[in-house]
Amino acid sequence: MTDAAGLYDARYRDPAQAVPEEWNEVLQTMLGHHSVRSFLPTPVPESALQAAIAAASSAPTSSNLQTWSVIAVQDAGRRDRLRALGGGQRFITDAPLLLMWIADLSRLHALAEERQATVDGINYLEATFVAIIDVALAAQNALVALESMGLGTVYIGGMRNKPEAVAAELGLPKRAFAVFGMSVGWPDPAVTNAVKPRLPQSAVLHRETYDTAAQLPAVAEYDPRMGAFQTEQGMAPEVWTQRVINRVRDAGALNGRDRMRAALGALGFELR
Amino acid sequence: MTDAAGLYDARYRDPAQAVPEEWNEVLQTMLGHHSVRSFLPTPVPESALQAAIAAASSAPTSSNLQTWSVIAVQDAGRRDRLRALGGGQRFITDAPLLLMWIADLSRLHALAEERQATVDGINYLEATFVAIIDVALAAQNALVALESMGLGTVYIGGMRNKPEAVAAELGLPKRAFAVFGMSVGWPDPAVTNAVKPRLPQSAVLHRETYDTAAQLPAVAEYDPRMGAFQTEQGMAPEVWTQRVINRVRDAGALNGRDRMRAALGALGFELR
Repeated sequence: MTDAAGLYDARYRDPAQAVPEEWNEVLQTMLGHHSVRSFLPTPVPESALQAAIAAASSAPTSSNLQTWSVIAVQDAGRRDRLRALGGGQRFITDAPLLLMWIADLSRLHALAEERQATVDGINYLEATFVAIIDVALAAQNALVALESMGLGTVYIGGMRNKPEAVAAELGLPKRAFAVFGMSVGWPDPAVTNAVKPRLPQSAVLHRETYDTAAQLPAVAEYDPRMGAFQTEQGMAPEVWTQRVINRVRDAGALNGRDRMRAALGALGFELR
Repeated sequence: MTDAAGLYDARYRDPAQAVPEEWNEVLQTMLGHHSVRSFLPTPVPESALQAAIAAASSAPTSSNLQTWSVIAVQDAGRRDRLRALGGGQRFITDAPLLLMWIADLSRLHALAEERQATVDGINYLEATFVAIIDVALAAQNALVALESMGLGTVYIGGMRNKPEAVAAELGLPKRAFAVFGMSVGWPDPAVTNAVKPRLPQSAVLHRETYDTAAQLPAVAEYDPRMGAFQTEQGMAPEVWTQRVINRVRDAGALNGRDRMRAALGALGFELR
């Protein structure tokens, strides 16, 4: 197995971060995560897809409601159209498999309709949260499963840029929407992907109550670590703090997602 | 390692489900997941907590915004008070560690304030979705990490029943809220926990476009499988379809979460 100390150092670049004695293949897979954006054209085996979906199905789900679905898109034309809707990233067409992860309240609605029952609870914001959480837990299990099998993955939040058009392309029923995509394929071995540093544990892990005072000093430690990482990767070093501020500067920075409420309304989510 | 065929059978109870040839410790850990609700009082080692948080930090995060935090609650009085707010489940006080997972837009706001910048984008529903997705991906990695170390876990969605009171107990700043709790501890070996069956892959996995026609027949296969599982567990068998319909029947079935929008508004989430 890869060295724990090396992966902890890559993930945090924090001299204060201890290396826990616990270590196994599961921790190694997760600590070693890096998004992959360069893929070989080799197809993903059907058995690997089924194993990943079994991992997704095995994730916890709120009250066993299972308010998620996933659509496996392999057709080149459809991947091309979804790429255009989701931000244009080349890897969406390069990777042979695109998984579209769906917050799905339509199934509950269909079950109720069949029994002439009402499920008015799904019209509340809470139910949409449940569906988003359910699909996120399922997708993350699938991602870790895929990486454990040597496949590469990357989430595509850009699939929320134009929710109605994406829903139309996927033939989604009312009360379902694509929360994110995930490109899946065999990583191009000619491209190396480094583990990206994250905020130190002192920034994200609080004890007993939220420690507001610890936030800004912890982030101040992080900015130069991200800068060093980017320099090593041959990228122009940015200041993380400034970059994330720019990313949520105003409605215009959200790539169309400032109209999420209207878009979801059009797709049958009342969000009461 | 545990037999793959046995875990696939437990998870799906579906004679049509193939057992993929791919198998490893990561898949085994995830396929074998079951929530734990009976814990020993033995403390969770600090090193195991740090390993779990490192797994959480290693999860993908939208645009590296890292809009999540986690609060480790060990104080018995605080766990007792959070138990009362979150549904009263005994395991919340039995388990020595309660992780409260926070959708955290407050960090971005604090960074902007320090630089006299604006981050108006965080006031949109989309930003709240990003924070919920970020914290769900992080928490799920932590859950799988904890289970890989032999610890037991269970999510507590009931922590959304009274968001303002939970936020006050945790001292959350504005623009942060607890999405769910997670009890963590060593499973009581006297209590066996079985793998719960899920909907067949034919219900959740679609090809190219969403297959509405497949939904109801697939669910019809699932109802008797869940019934058989419950009978085996010594529980009165329910019809899953009827149970989930009841769970979202109307606003009153949401345990107070029908007021999520107002609650989040009070906590500084504008949800535009």
